[in-house]
Amino acid sequence: MIVMLAGGVGASKLILGFSKLLGPEQLTIIGNTGDDIELLGLRICPDLDTIIYTLSGKVNPATGWGIGEDSFDCLQALKSLGGPSWFQLGDRDLATHLWRTSLLREGQSLTQVTHSIGQALGVQYRLLPMTDSYVPTYMVTDQGELHIQEYLVREQCRPILRELRYSNIEQAQPAPGVAEAILKAEAVVLCPSNPFISIGPILAVPGLQELLVQTEAPVLAVTPIVNQRALKGPTAKMLKELAYAVSPTSIAEIYKDFLDVFVLDERDWELREEIEALQIRVLTCNTVMTSMEDKINLARGLLEML
Amino acid sequence: MIVMLAGGVGASKLILGFSKLLGPEQLTIIGNTGDDIELLGLRICPDLDTIIYTLSGKVNPATGWGIGEDSFDCLQALKSLGGPSWFQLGDRDLATHLWRTSLLREGQSLTQVTHSIGQALGVQYRLLPMTDSYVPTYMVTDQGELHIQEYLVREQCRPILRELRYSNIEQAQPAPGVAEAILKAEAVVLCPSNPFISIGPILAVPGLQELLVQTEAPVLAVTPIVNQRALKGPTAKMLKELAYAVSPTSIAEIYKDFLDVFVLDERDWELREEIEALQIRVLTCNTVMTSMEDKINLARGLLEML
Repeated sequence: MIVMLAGGVGASKLILGFSKLLGPEQLTIIGNTGDDIELLGLRICPDLDTIIYTLSGKVNPATGWGIGEDSFDCLQALKSLGGPSWFQLGDRDLATHLWRTSLLREGQSLTQVTHSIGQALGVQYRLLPMTDSYVPTYMVTDQGELHIQEYLVREQCRPILRELRYSNIEQAQPAPGVAEAILKAEAVVLCPSNPFISIGPILAVPGLQELLVQTEAPVLAVTPIVNQRALKGPTAKMLKELAYAVSPTSIAEIYKDFLDVFVLDERDWELREEIEALQIRVLTCNTVMTSMEDKINLARGLLEML
Repeated sequence: MIVMLAGGVGASKLILGFSKLLGPEQLTIIGNTGDDIELLGLRICPDLDTIIYTLSGKVNPATGWGIGEDSFDCLQALKSLGGPSWFQLGDRDLATHLWRTSLLREGQSLTQVTHSIGQALGVQYRLLPMTDSYVPTYMVTDQGELHIQEYLVREQCRPILRELRYSNIEQAQPAPGVAEAILKAEAVVLCPSNPFISIGPILAVPGLQELLVQTEAPVLAVTPIVNQRALKGPTAKMLKELAYAVSPTSIAEIYKDFLDVFVLDERDWELREEIEALQIRVLTCNTVMTSMEDKINLARGLLEML
């Protein structure tokens, strides 16, 4: 059984690749919930939804998140009313948030709700939120502290990042099933996601890093940085602003306490020794997933390495 | 200043007629909130919304409620998730409920929220909820107790009504502005609405009926029953099941403690004496509002009588 620690869009590509090779019993995904937001009274879980929408084939292929061909009539009407319109809430997507919020209010846990939404949309793979607690990430920036979605969506990552705060994390614990999955895994894969806002919150859940040290499974990370650039999103900008080099080596360093294998892109093969010096094994292959074939090939490559 | 006590669709027709003749300072509407429902964590106020959508020109002309040409993508998606889909939530309409709920959670009163939603949609007329409390009407039926919307929408009024329960009403008080409006009115008009589920909840707010007795303004009711039939909705069925005759006289009887004038449809002129026997003055005219002209003519007729 492979366990994947996953953020949103980048992770979903690799998850989709794995899903074409492995059955539901062979894959468990632990999803970031640090990017969750409560907006208009709704609990929105962008990373979990991206994974569910991707695996159910509903995802918007143009963006990698949201639902394909969704309409935005509610959002437009909300704008007319003077409500917040910076967060892109599609009409179909909204149903997920309404239903999730409703089930949470009835007393179900996020684990239960995520399972039932996945089931309803035909997702057979096991997706666990990292925790059932609400632990939104806050970005401490030159423009003050912003909720991660305010930073990402409303401010388009413009503010300069000084620090991250995983709020309420000290009270959180891994969601039911998370510890067992990691301890019983044959391999743990950290997806090519942002180390600060996608993987970081998962690692910040008390006890989570200890599980990665404790498990007998190899822990493997796929680089989100290729050729000194982030494959997607603000990873490069964040690395710089937090005084890291924009290099796969920085990622390996961040994970070094528990990482066994680093998957470096073949374009960066010359960094191999730098990372090996951290006592981490390095594997090299194409990590850039543009086509479905790329996704399956990367997943197959990883399975073969393992 | 004319004060109208109003339910939903039937009332909105007459309100629209008055709005073509009177300016914002000359008309105050006190809207029923007994049909409010909390669904999916949203506070939905169907009667208030019908009035706002009607006055803003957004109403669906085919139904008399909801927003014209609204889409139902969220509702469809909700159905796929296994969520409740019996309540017709249009995508644009949903924005009203989301925004209202959000403002209520921030601590605004329903009066404030109703005002700001009306303003945002360009409604200049003063619409006051009958109370700021949540006082949903329950229908005691042969199939158990149902929330009024479950009875009206989900069960399509099929269960046999035995009794109504205006829940939580003893704790309610008239919303700010309601008492003053009634006491200062030049006339109070009970719209041609259902006496049990539209006007009934308003009259059940503690102190409300006393205000109607106390005001020096004539209190006038427009019949919702013409030619032994309800103009709209389940009024006739309810009258029967609650052991009233399906007759304008029953309506006049229900209101007789405070009613000065009953507006009878000209088709029912022979009932005049029956109602006058209740010590209520009777005026007769066409009360059936099909066209905009009908609405304006009825409003003009009432103003002339006053």
